Amino acid sequence: MTASRSAKTQKSPSTPLNQKQNLRPIGVFDSGVGGLTVAAALRELLPAEEIFYVGDTARVPYGGKSPATIERYGIEISGMLLAEGAKIIVVACNTASALAVPRLQDLLRVPVIGVIEPGASAAVAATKSKHVGVIGTRATVQSKAYERAIHAIDPSIKVRAQACPLLVPLIEEGWLEDAVTDQVIQRYLNPMVRSGIDTLVLGCTHYPLLSTALASYVGSGITLVDSARNCAANVRALLQKLSLAAPKNRPGGLKVALTDPSGSFLRVAEQALGLQVGDIELRSVQRAGM
Amino acid sequence: MTASRSAKTQKSPSTPLNQKQNLRPIGVFDSGVGGLTVAAALRELLPAEEIFYVGDTARVPYGGKSPATIERYGIEISGMLLAEGAKIIVVACNTASALAVPRLQDLLRVPVIGVIEPGASAAVAATKSKHVGVIGTRATVQSKAYERAIHAIDPSIKVRAQACPLLVPLIEEGWLEDAVTDQVIQRYLNPMVRSGIDTLVLGCTHYPLLSTALASYVGSGITLVDSARNCAANVRALLQKLSLAAPKNRPGGLKVALTDPSGSFLRVAEQALGLQVGDIELRSVQRAGM
Repeated sequence: MTASRSAKTQKSPSTPLNQKQNLRPIGVFDSGVGGLTVAAALRELLPAEEIFYVGDTARVPYGGKSPATIERYGIEISGMLLAEGAKIIVVACNTASALAVPRLQDLLRVPVIGVIEPGASAAVAATKSKHVGVIGTRATVQSKAYERAIHAIDPSIKVRAQACPLLVPLIEEGWLEDAVTDQVIQRYLNPMVRSGIDTLVLGCTHYPLLSTALASYVGSGITLVDSARNCAANVRALLQKLSLAAPKNRPGGLKVALTDPSGSFLRVAEQALGLQVGDIELRSVQRAGM
Repeated sequence: MTASRSAKTQKSPSTPLNQKQNLRPIGVFDSGVGGLTVAAALRELLPAEEIFYVGDTARVPYGGKSPATIERYGIEISGMLLAEGAKIIVVACNTASALAVPRLQDLLRVPVIGVIEPGASAAVAATKSKHVGVIGTRATVQSKAYERAIHAIDPSIKVRAQACPLLVPLIEEGWLEDAVTDQVIQRYLNPMVRSGIDTLVLGCTHYPLLSTALASYVGSGITLVDSARNCAANVRALLQKLSLAAPKNRPGGLKVALTDPSGSFLRVAEQALGLQVGDIELRSVQRAGM
């Protein structure tokens, strides 16, 4: 309290108080390393920003767990991002976005952005038939978060959601272009595609790694909506609105911390996304919390 | 210390001190509900025993996580079993058996039994060609725990291990008799089967639920070894040796606690195993620890 008051009384007209805030990192978290698709989109769109990414690999996946547990995990990992001075928190995980963002927005003063609203907006913009499909984890689909977000914009849109719990394990096994994966995709998507959707939301941050296989199955008549890009665009807009963007001439960068040393999949993601990730920090999640 | 001394000085010749210990439960834990295959084998072989089962569903699966994290989780969940008065701890999870049992045996005074040694003994007894295959999670296979346990009995046996990370998600999706599952099994097992094994260790407590599909693929020339039954037999022998078995006329029972309310898979396992599981208790893993 004292330190903050003395900072306010210091005279430094050429350096507004915000300046220091602008240099603070964008905090990004995911249950694992799938959220690096969002980090990659942020790096591309906001190259001057520092990104501090935490992957909760010690407790991955979130997608089959209960709402209360997912909310608690979201709060704990957000605590780690706040300790790094995050100026904004990006929940780069559909499951945590669906189940933890409302509570995080209640608890925290820094802005919290998830991937659901950006994905929902993009789907509403893309659909002409007003019939949208959503795929995600069991927890995301059961939460009906996409339905709510889409209906908040346009209640007349028909939404059909399908949980696809095998897609993440297939991606982590590296079977991205594979006959088995194609059959699993067909099994999950066939009823949805036949029901006449013209837009498909990839409601899990891993799924963009399967976009070739998914696009090939659904065909050109269905638009794939990837929330990573839309989320990054929303983060940019919000930072500008709040005057929190980093000065444009900075190089920016990406730091990754994991709660458990990840296996080979991190390197797969790094390659597939063309991301530069240096040394990976290991953090104990038990020390986190708020 | 004082309480324990006064207990020793009490005169009750008809009730030996052990009597109270004998009534204490067998503590069983697994990363999730797959270890119920071991609980079912224990119920069948030791119907008079109380079993207290903890499934760490808040952090499931363990199979892709690091040795240090798996060891820590094993210690925390064992603390929950000790708090229930467990007279023996059964690690009904191959991954935790491979990576946490040695440390638990160092730390704890109660006996700790995993599923690796029982499975290894059964494989050594079954093989005639002295060529054994092992399937399990990534962490179990990387630990080489089965190779070590088999070679401790017979160093001349050739062991070939294969990580099968997609089998657990396929089982949890309920695709037990399914063309996709059959293809995944073929992909994982083909090199092993062609290499001439005559015995296959199901090195993950979920896998017995796939035994029909696995047996059909490998054919009658290869014996499947399921560590659940062998582990239960070892527990019985050890309880008798230590005079810790429950009196035979007791009804016994099974209590299940989970660190996260599980989805539908618990009921699938209950049905497939013919287990009677009553109300499921919910426990916070954060309160555990030693």
